[in-house]
Amino acid sequence: MTIRVAVIGATGVVGQQFLVALAHHPWFKVERLAASSRSAGKRYAEALRDPQSGASRWLVEAPLPEGYADITVEDAATFDPRGLGLVFTGIEEGEAARQLEPRLAQAVPVVSTASAFRMEPDVPLVVPYLNADHLALVGKQREHHGWKGFIVPIPNCTTTGLVISLAPIVRTFGVQTALMVSLQALSGAGRSPGVSALDILDNVVPYIPREEEKVARETAKILGKLRGGVIEPLPLPLSAICTRVNVRDGHTEAVFVSAAEAVTPEAARQAMTGFQGDCADLGLPSAPEQPIAVRDDPYRPQPRLDRDTGRGMTTVVGRIEAHDALPNGLKWVLVSHNTRMGAAQGAVLTAELLAHQGYLQ
Amino acid sequence: MTIRVAVIGATGVVGQQFLVALAHHPWFKVERLAASSRSAGKRYAEALRDPQSGASRWLVEAPLPEGYADITVEDAATFDPRGLGLVFTGIEEGEAARQLEPRLAQAVPVVSTASAFRMEPDVPLVVPYLNADHLALVGKQREHHGWKGFIVPIPNCTTTGLVISLAPIVRTFGVQTALMVSLQALSGAGRSPGVSALDILDNVVPYIPREEEKVARETAKILGKLRGGVIEPLPLPLSAICTRVNVRDGHTEAVFVSAAEAVTPEAARQAMTGFQGDCADLGLPSAPEQPIAVRDDPYRPQPRLDRDTGRGMTTVVGRIEAHDALPNGLKWVLVSHNTRMGAAQGAVLTAELLAHQGYLQ
Amino acid sequence: MTIRVAVIGATGVVGQQFLVALAHHPWFKVERLAASSRSAGKRYAEALRDPQSGASRWLVEAPLPEGYADITVEDAATFDPRGLGLVFTGIEEGEAARQLEPRLAQAVPVVSTASAFRMEPDVPLVVPYLNADHLALVGKQREHHGWKGFIVPIPNCTTTGLVISLAPIVRTFGVQTALMVSLQALSGAGRSPGVSALDILDNVVPYIPREEEKVARETAKILGKLRGGVIEPLPLPLSAICTRVNVRDGHTEAVFVSAAEAVTPEAARQAMTGFQGDCADLGLPSAPEQPIAVRDDPYRPQPRLDRDTGRGMTTVVGRIEAHDALPNGLKWVLVSHNTRMGAAQGAVLTAELLAHQGYLQ
Amino acid sequence: MTIRVAVIGATGVVGQQFLVALAHHPWFKVERLAASSRSAGKRYAEALRDPQSGASRWLVEAPLPEGYADITVEDAATFDPRGLGLVFTGIEEGEAARQLEPRLAQAVPVVSTASAFRMEPDVPLVVPYLNADHLALVGKQREHHGWKGFIVPIPNCTTTGLVISLAPIVRTFGVQTALMVSLQALSGAGRSPGVSALDILDNVVPYIPREEEKVARETAKILGKLRGGVIEPLPLPLSAICTRVNVRDGHTEAVFVSAAEAVTPEAARQAMTGFQGDCADLGLPSAPEQPIAVRDDPYRPQPRLDRDTGRGMTTVVGRIEAHDALPNGLKWVLVSHNTRMGAAQGAVLTAELLAHQGYLQ
Repeated sequence: MTIRVAVIGATGVVGQQFLVALAHHPWFKVERLAASSRSAGKRYAEALRDPQSGASRWLVEAPLPEGYADITVEDAATFDPRGLGLVFTGIEEGEAARQLEPRLAQAVPVVSTASAFRMEPDVPLVVPYLNADHLALVGKQREHHGWKGFIVPIPNCTTTGLVISLAPIVRTFGVQTALMVSLQALSGAGRSPGVSALDILDNVVPYIPREEEKVARETAKILGKLRGGVIEPLPLPLSAICTRVNVRDGHTEAVFVSAAEAVTPEAARQAMTGFQGDCADLGLPSAPEQPIAVRDDPYRPQPRLDRDTGRGMTTVVGRIEAHDALPNGLKWVLVSHNTRMGAAQGAVLTAELLAHQGYLQ
Repeated sequence: MTIRVAVIGATGVVGQQFLVALAHHPWFKVERLAASSRSAGKRYAEALRDPQSGASRWLVEAPLPEGYADITVEDAATFDPRGLGLVFTGIEEGEAARQLEPRLAQAVPVVSTASAFRMEPDVPLVVPYLNADHLALVGKQREHHGWKGFIVPIPNCTTTGLVISLAPIVRTFGVQTALMVSLQALSGAGRSPGVSALDILDNVVPYIPREEEKVARETAKILGKLRGGVIEPLPLPLSAICTRVNVRDGHTEAVFVSAAEAVTPEAARQAMTGFQGDCADLGLPSAPEQPIAVRDDPYRPQPRLDRDTGRGMTTVVGRIEAHDALPNGLKWVLVSHNTRMGAAQGAVLTAELLAHQGYLQ
Repeated sequence: MTIRVAVIGATGVVGQQFLVALAHHPWFKVERLAASSRSAGKRYAEALRDPQSGASRWLVEAPLPEGYADITVEDAATFDPRGLGLVFTGIEEGEAARQLEPRLAQAVPVVSTASAFRMEPDVPLVVPYLNADHLALVGKQREHHGWKGFIVPIPNCTTTGLVISLAPIVRTFGVQTALMVSLQALSGAGRSPGVSALDILDNVVPYIPREEEKVARETAKILGKLRGGVIEPLPLPLSAICTRVNVRDGHTEAVFVSAAEAVTPEAARQAMTGFQGDCADLGLPSAPEQPIAVRDDPYRPQPRLDRDTGRGMTTVVGRIEAHDALPNGLKWVLVSHNTRMGAAQGAVLTAELLAHQGYLQ
Repeated sequence: MTIRVAVIGATGVVGQQFLVALAHHPWFKVERLAASSRSAGKRYAEALRDPQSGASRWLVEAPLPEGYADITVEDAATFDPRGLGLVFTGIEEGEAARQLEPRLAQAVPVVSTASAFRMEPDVPLVVPYLNADHLALVGKQREHHGWKGFIVPIPNCTTTGLVISLAPIVRTFGVQTALMVSLQALSGAGRSPGVSALDILDNVVPYIPREEEKVARETAKILGKLRGGVIEPLPLPLSAICTRVNVRDGHTEAVFVSAAEAVTPEAARQAMTGFQGDCADLGLPSAPEQPIAVRDDPYRPQPRLDRDTGRGMTTVVGRIEAHDALPNGLKWVLVSHNTRMGAAQGAVLTAELLAHQGYLQ
């Protein structure tokens, strides 16, 4: 099986992460790249070059994989996806995604990191470990719009780790309420211009616009049930305070919940470590050995030491403890890699699941 | 009025902060310094010098104030406080404080940053803005032990900002439960060796030993009522997750509460900004204009920009918002200067209050 | 004496630094502000507000001084300076300064932080401690152009500390050649967008465009002699490697020179500490006690500890040592505050010198 | 071929790096571990555990490789090396190495990261790419002391990158003098206590004790000629200023030289990229493809992006330019991984070279 794919937004940081995640991929082969009209018509390596300074705008840690440098970048606005099996979109501006993705979905499946369509009723919002069954919504979506393709977005990178660590607790014990404080990494803010060094050195920024609402809404949808072609969100009151700290990659999140029944830290720990998730044993190339790893050292998880666990696809949890500020109170800390599981590589895993389930024919 | 004082632990970072806070103080005059036997007998400037590298171990940002360099450091273990009006102790090791402070209190009042005696029933734990009346406990304390002096500790630096921002909400609306996540500064970890740069660069450390328990216990005691010579702690379930971030000074804390009655963010804001506290209008030299300042910019408070408000004695609050994860849910973010209000300068303010109330005769 | 002044580029970071440097100034009174057409017509406080996020773009550490918030910002492109005694320009883009400053200089004196005119033959490039006599060039300038005013730029912030520390060595012993490596602070890169946090965390950037050439050229001009209305640059071969490090303020520079005659570190130290400079005893409000302070602790100067010496107007030097890699080899390390002496406050000191010498009538 | 080895100082950070460098090594098999008497008798995993906090003191980024956890740690002071083919010592204190290494060398070859014996006349100081022939000195060494083994230290981590980039220029064009400023990473300072976070946040420390002298002496010895059983150091005047910056791994060094003959940047570039070195084509497992990689992007090398080139064994050079501050002046910037090529992995490469040349029989 080889599925021919394109990456739209290829010169941006998320697009670059797609290229790294898709290099040497056993199922997907990147054949075309698209970006804004400024880059269109240039070789990819040229499109990356800053016209003034001559410096490369390749922004991810890994070097540019082989095979991309000579692809001619196309104009996303007029990109014709016919002939491809799938398109990945990594567009940072919401408005652009809102225009572009439906046009592409007329012809081909679209897997997207953008937030534009996450909360549409006929759009599944999928974390492959948690709610693979929601993908069935794409049938509805095709029907509504008369599309050959569909749009499947992945969640916000701050939602991802939270919802993965919550799922086994919700399913095993029930959760009445949840509170979360995030200490988010710089790379979650993108790159143009992203966070200024002067703003974050020796500092914390206690606000990320619209992030807290997204986390609450998306978590309820992901943990919801698909019934009769409609997703019923989980009725889970959830409040977050999202902050930015001076860390490159890896969101740290401190979580308090009130469980529906009594739960010891050891039982919570077992629910998490025993959690296999919906894509265990499916042979998906990007799936990690386990969705959640629990550390017993009280000084863990730490973003620098734990973000790369399971090649960045495993959520690492520690400090699971009881507390009495809420009924059946439980608290923990997690680290989730915001640009791997939380962005391009999470989208690639979602596409693998779509392929496995037969949605990419 | 001039009160002759000594600083014990003078070569450590808290002791150094005492010297800065007491330089040019209108009421207190530092006449003697003490430290470990290693420093005893040396001029203070000499005692600060690293014997191997020759570098100065003066560790605070402000330069060494005039007048201290030539004082001969005494041995804390045999220090005789008679003749002084007050002793400040800034000893970082708990065990040493547990030995030393009662011995000193036999003769003179002791104001301490150490945790050793904070939870003793006859020891007041005072934030001057909040519970000045608790100081009356020192009468009990003298009586129990037959001391001429007494011990008054200040709270943990992480408790301080939290309890100051909670007080007006507790008193105006009542609080049923509270949850807090701290993003603590490096200087709170002391200096010998403190936090290693390798451990915190590009990182967060999600655990600070014993900090979370201290915050819960101390908050309940400070907000408690003194009745019949006994402090009844406030029955406030409180759970914290305490983390360390790469910030020099200024603890940031994200707080969620469930109030006892409905409260709008605007009402909470007014309760905080209108809060005068117990040392308003007393003319205490270290008291700020207001105990709490509220910022309306959603990107504030930030530790680097807000920690020095009111010369580090004002707690800065922002992002006051309602939430529905708890009944009458309210959340906010605060910044409190951990080495000013949270340590030496907070202890000096406490001593000023003791002087004003006539406890230092 | 009160001289009415305007600040052009008032909403940018250099303009903001001007406002802080000029608040409560005994001689200069800011009466008017100008910026791009985007800000024109708004109150200054409004012009600072980000239209999307509502956050303030006040970017300097000190809070906005009183008295500016309600001034209506004018459009720099059409700003009419008549009636003012002096205009400060803090424009970050070279091209804009090249258009604007000559137009303003037709009517009034202009003191500028921009690089546009620094190397013009009839433009003095002044460090007030070093070459006050070069200001006489403004007569030539007026004559050439038929202006009532003139343009006096200050040097690049990386030149400033280097040339101040070199001057006493050049004048006392002579210098045959000089090599310098800078470790420059983030604030030198401006703010829009400035340095991205992702680029500098756990990193060094070994290149700053055009900086190395500027340092060499400007140093030679500043240390040159004004003879017959022409500045003869000092014939000093100088090569620099300029790097960016993760420091907020304060450029650190490591310097090697080959002196023209034998010089001991102690003699070099005395030449630096004894250096009074051209504005000693003139009563200029922004002048520090001494242009250069020498630290004997081998671990100094450090940018965080030393940048604020003399309110940021003193260059701090340490590690003065001999070496044998060059004839009469000497090396040292310096720290210079790039946004105080190296930018707005240095420009204000230059204006004070102009006022003192009678150039602002 | 399997050579049985031990690692001495196994619980320290250099020892841990040895364990990572030797995991799955095709030639060397770690059979024994030794450390201070505090750790002796414990399982290695236990010896790493902090007795107070329970946290692991495993300090390197990579996780503890399999196979070490259950080895019982021996006491270095009484360690009997007989039966081993080689001992690696990674002892951070100079005095301890001075006692221990000669005792071990009586029986077996010792490859060491310590500085204790680097400048002894009968001790080769080897960078495997540069002066493999110096290893012949070990015959002298054995003879002098009557040892069965010998001591081969590797250079200081700051010397390593400098001398590798200098070698092709010295050999092709000659070098009359060299000046270098280092911006050194935190991990070079070790870990107990290493650099305090408070000292380096928003800061640069301009001094590293004894580093500058080591760099000069070691460079001259490594580039020297072995003639008649004696190393004649290269007569190369060299002065360095060594600073510490807030970077985890990877020393950045800015270099100025005066070549013996005219040399264009392009010729220097070719000499560096064409440099094969003494261990090309020998099949040494730790040898990189090329000792030196040159980057053309003027913003490179950067420690975070370039330190891992060639698995940390390649020195990355950029910004090769001419300058006129010295005759035939040339300058460049390099990044060298201080804990890979500059420490344990560089020692392993040296041992591979010893094995290849037949010194480990």
